[in-house]
Amino acid sequence: MTRLTRALKGELTPGMVRVASMEGVAPELVGKGVADGSIVILRNSNRKSDIVEGIGKGLRTKVSASVGLYGSQASVPTELMKVQAALDAGTNAIMDLSVSGDINGLRRQVLAAASKPVGTLPLYQALAEAKEKYNTPAKMKVDELFGVIERHAADGVDFLALHCGTTMEIVKRAKKDGRVDPLVSYGGSHLIGWMLYNQMENPLYTGFDRILEIAGKYDVTISLADGMRPGCLADSLDGAQVQELVLLGELVRRAREAGVQVMVKGPGHVPLHQLKATVVLQKSLCKGAPYFVFGPVVTDIAAGYDHISASIGGAVSAWAGAEFLCYVTASEHIGLPDINQVREGVVAARIAAHAGDLAKGLPGAAEWDLEISRARKLLDWEKQIRLAVDPERARYLREERSDGNSEGCAMCGKYCAMKVVSEYLGSPRQNC
Amino acid sequence: MTRLTRALKGELTPGMVRVASMEGVAPELVGKGVADGSIVILRNSNRKSDIVEGIGKGLRTKVSASVGLYGSQASVPTELMKVQAALDAGTNAIMDLSVSGDINGLRRQVLAAASKPVGTLPLYQALAEAKEKYNTPAKMKVDELFGVIERHAADGVDFLALHCGTTMEIVKRAKKDGRVDPLVSYGGSHLIGWMLYNQMENPLYTGFDRILEIAGKYDVTISLADGMRPGCLADSLDGAQVQELVLLGELVRRAREAGVQVMVKGPGHVPLHQLKATVVLQKSLCKGAPYFVFGPVVTDIAAGYDHISASIGGAVSAWAGAEFLCYVTASEHIGLPDINQVREGVVAARIAAHAGDLAKGLPGAAEWDLEISRARKLLDWEKQIRLAVDPERARYLREERSDGNSEGCAMCGKYCAMKVVSEYLGSPRQNC
Repeated sequence: MTRLTRALKGELTPGMVRVASMEGVAPELVGKGVADGSIVILRNSNRKSDIVEGIGKGLRTKVSASVGLYGSQASVPTELMKVQAALDAGTNAIMDLSVSGDINGLRRQVLAAASKPVGTLPLYQALAEAKEKYNTPAKMKVDELFGVIERHAADGVDFLALHCGTTMEIVKRAKKDGRVDPLVSYGGSHLIGWMLYNQMENPLYTGFDRILEIAGKYDVTISLADGMRPGCLADSLDGAQVQELVLLGELVRRAREAGVQVMVKGPGHVPLHQLKATVVLQKSLCKGAPYFVFGPVVTDIAAGYDHISASIGGAVSAWAGAEFLCYVTASEHIGLPDINQVREGVVAARIAAHAGDLAKGLPGAAEWDLEISRARKLLDWEKQIRLAVDPERARYLREERSDGNSEGCAMCGKYCAMKVVSEYLGSPRQNC
Repeated sequence: MTRLTRALKGELTPGMVRVASMEGVAPELVGKGVADGSIVILRNSNRKSDIVEGIGKGLRTKVSASVGLYGSQASVPTELMKVQAALDAGTNAIMDLSVSGDINGLRRQVLAAASKPVGTLPLYQALAEAKEKYNTPAKMKVDELFGVIERHAADGVDFLALHCGTTMEIVKRAKKDGRVDPLVSYGGSHLIGWMLYNQMENPLYTGFDRILEIAGKYDVTISLADGMRPGCLADSLDGAQVQELVLLGELVRRAREAGVQVMVKGPGHVPLHQLKATVVLQKSLCKGAPYFVFGPVVTDIAAGYDHISASIGGAVSAWAGAEFLCYVTASEHIGLPDINQVREGVVAARIAAHAGDLAKGLPGAAEWDLEISRARKLLDWEKQIRLAVDPERARYLREERSDGNSEGCAMCGKYCAMKVVSEYLGSPRQNC
């Protein structure tokens, strides 16, 4: 029996209780959310530890960091260092999106090393293995694809990204409607390339019941990926994106009927004024399933700073109800991130997530800010640093700057304006 | 006659025409905006060049970068390097907020070097000179303060930040209402310290007509600074902030009656869900005067990354109608920024400004994104880099990463999924 099936019977599993304790909410809230599909708990029953993370309504907004082997320069040790950097920076999940090299090896090492749930995108490995076997990914067999999906699930992967809704009908819609940038989802593009080459419907759609069977067996959460994710503001909320989302709504229902936890992946590139509509639409079409958005970036022009553009979109999306933010790094649209960009990407997404939680009034969210603000008033630097989103970075900057500032305020001598003011206001601040 | 007086007579000045040309709008739109106070043109009639920048309704959202001498470690050459870094990163204005050292010297060099309008906060220098003369800033004479204001205006400073609304009544409100962090405005705190020490009302309020006389003489724009700027989310939109804003509304009316251009400075720390209300309130109380917001940051916990937190708040504020964003650097709440943080702070604020312009549908804003998206589809790297918000940074990252990526896509061999897809879609993309 899966976690969802148990929840529907009113059972509270140890995972639900652990999530509730991590979030500071009642276990019943988590149980009810899992039952109605508004919460998923990321945890494969084969994962060799008690790692869990809850994603969904009433819980803190979470962030995910992606790593993976790509190209001949990529190495397993470097990707493992990125995993560690992401975890140190406070990510709530890791996605291993390897497309080449020792894909099995990295995945298993990530699963062993990560203290958080791990997600993968099995299509990449299936295509890579087909290239190895047939000298072209286009000849990948459907059974081989499902074999890789099962391999990932059996290894203990907690959530699987699958482009189940990218059907021929939807590819035709993109062709008819004339997008500015037709396809930017890497997995989606490769899947459609395979479909067109083989003149076959999307096997992740036609074989959705096989996916549900595998997912049910290992209690894996399905992340319904959006092959039609828009790649620029001009394509946001267009026919192809929305038609795919309609279909993903159908698949959410089928997954739940099979007792499989499901969330929906979202854009991408969305202008600020369309973010709320995007989230409201997903919530309606996908019956309240958790929304896992990729950023979104709110302008197309921020290459080199897309973690900042994405934090704007992530914050407003989280406020509107998206519960899971896939990080975007500074080098998005340019190349793969280095370790420092991984770290900054996670922190930028965490700031967005927390800003969204504050805005939607999530119980407990404002207390963190209140506590650091009180420490700031008291000039309690140790506490401010400890409470900062990235204490290591705050401490580094404080120490780097302390030489120039150690003399205190440059304005006053014996008379201290701050002292005069704080005495009047009855505030404990004694100097500046 | 000031620019505002001329605009009210229906005159189009060369500055208005230049602003219209920079913005790609009709000169009449600028003239009408200056006349009704919804647009200010930053340009002192004594400034020795034809530098102008328009701030306000119907124009692109602008950003300002602050530098200044603070403490014995500060140096004029370093601050001038920060000015250059901010200009290179695309700032629309510089504020020199020096509080010590060779304040006159830096200001004059900034005015000579900057290709954009320059603002200052004269109170700092008046207090610093009083400390020099009387051994304490508390003994600053009112006439000395006005002397410094006139000196800055005569030097050609384009806009002056003045805490004219921070009256004793409002300080009492802060005391009564019990803020978490009573005062975080550095200028406001020093002003209130002086007021309490001398038991005198705010001379910038009682002497507002003198300020208007000086501003009128040099056509300086007044930036009505908010001494009660909240310093944490918990204090946002509280009694002290709002009562001061009510009074600033009165001063906006008086400035306009005197033919003086005026804008209003804003917070600070504002949770996402209060940003729109904050801007709507300012627009109502201050009769559509341009709103110059400081960030705002949307959480108190992002020390070390406050440029990111501020870009979230800046974007949503700009969308709501704020027209001028004061940058916040990564080291805000910790120390003074270094040159790299100045650069990143400007770019983060520019991303926020542009995201806001896109969201409010500013004519022409979406074209930039469309152009870079088309270049992205065509894999035209030169054009993508040229159109990026910070081309130098985009080029650096592209070159740094190109080794690892130059082999092209790691997935396909002779068969290219992207080629298959783009042939089907009739898209010009040929490889990935």
